[in-house]
Amino acid sequence: MVSSDELADRAGVNAAQVRKDLSYLGSFGRRGVGYETHHLLDRVSYSLGLSKPRTLVIVGAGKLGSALLAYKGFREKGFKPVAAFDVNKEKIGKTIGSVRVYDISRIKEILKKKSPEIAIIAVTAPYAQEVANELVAAGIRSILNFAPMVLKIPPQVVFRQVDLSLELDAISYYLNKRVPAEKSA
Amino acid sequence: MVSSDELADRAGVNAAQVRKDLSYLGSFGRRGVGYETHHLLDRVSYSLGLSKPRTLVIVGAGKLGSALLAYKGFREKGFKPVAAFDVNKEKIGKTIGSVRVYDISRIKEILKKKSPEIAIIAVTAPYAQEVANELVAAGIRSILNFAPMVLKIPPQVVFRQVDLSLELDAISYYLNKRVPAEKSA
Repeated sequence: MVSSDELADRAGVNAAQVRKDLSYLGSFGRRGVGYETHHLLDRVSYSLGLSKPRTLVIVGAGKLGSALLAYKGFREKGFKPVAAFDVNKEKIGKTIGSVRVYDISRIKEILKKKSPEIAIIAVTAPYAQEVANELVAAGIRSILNFAPMVLKIPPQVVFRQVDLSLELDAISYYLNKRVPAEKSA
Repeated sequence: MVSSDELADRAGVNAAQVRKDLSYLGSFGRRGVGYETHHLLDRVSYSLGLSKPRTLVIVGAGKLGSALLAYKGFREKGFKPVAAFDVNKEKIGKTIGSVRVYDISRIKEILKKKSPEIAIIAVTAPYAQEVANELVAAGIRSILNFAPMVLKIPPQVVFRQVDLSLELDAISYYLNKRVPAEKSA
């Protein structure tokens, strides 16, 4: 069993918020007792669509792309990289974290063969839109963009943007105000 | 000049939200005309504490640490890496993106000398808390943690956590629901 107090403490939020958020997934906590851990995990995973593994490809096998290919947090949650792409001839044909790097010109062919659900863009900003267009043309259903660049993506594709410097902006803001930062989840 | 419509379009949010958010920084837009671009940029940078450069150190010069050292988005916003730390003898003494990699045992000495404002933790999860403790003992004012691990940090230190797989969870959720994703800023 795990209590909302314990969950709140680990996540750095308050217990009332934990109980409120989890109530959206159905009523399965017991007042004064807590949540049955396995059942809670199943319920959260199911709600997030994490109960089945998701395949992904990474476009760009430079420093960031390689770091993402090796990132343990992905595999632990069931995200499985099945291919990487790059323009660099020294990288093409190699494997990084057990994933093969293909020539970027083969995106359409490899996507057709492997049918990944998610594509991660980890190329430099000037190439990101071009890569996105190719992924969309190849029929990808969702894109996660790490390039520091706002992209135009058609509405039928699930799209999320990661800005690695956003959290530094937040730190800068709190350093400036000299007030305690909100804790993030 | 830039209109709230144009800003909204580029950020992927709606114009009313842009006007509301910017109104918190003071009233400097003109109805039907928009914002004077340079003044807007100054005002936003000032509010975020980005008008002065911020120095930072990165602990962990593996794949992720190296990617962060080379990440252009940081330098463009005035975040300046001044040192990196690692345990790997092959990396110590080398430079990555013009930043020198020091032996991790020298954290206290180098932090005293360079007085960085921010430390980024990019070591693997099992070492993250130990590194955080050393940084706090060395007097760091703020920490950004990329290790997939919840850390205990004293409240006087500004602390933010980045989870690279969170956005994949969001994508997974929207793929599951087969509804369009919210656009993120």
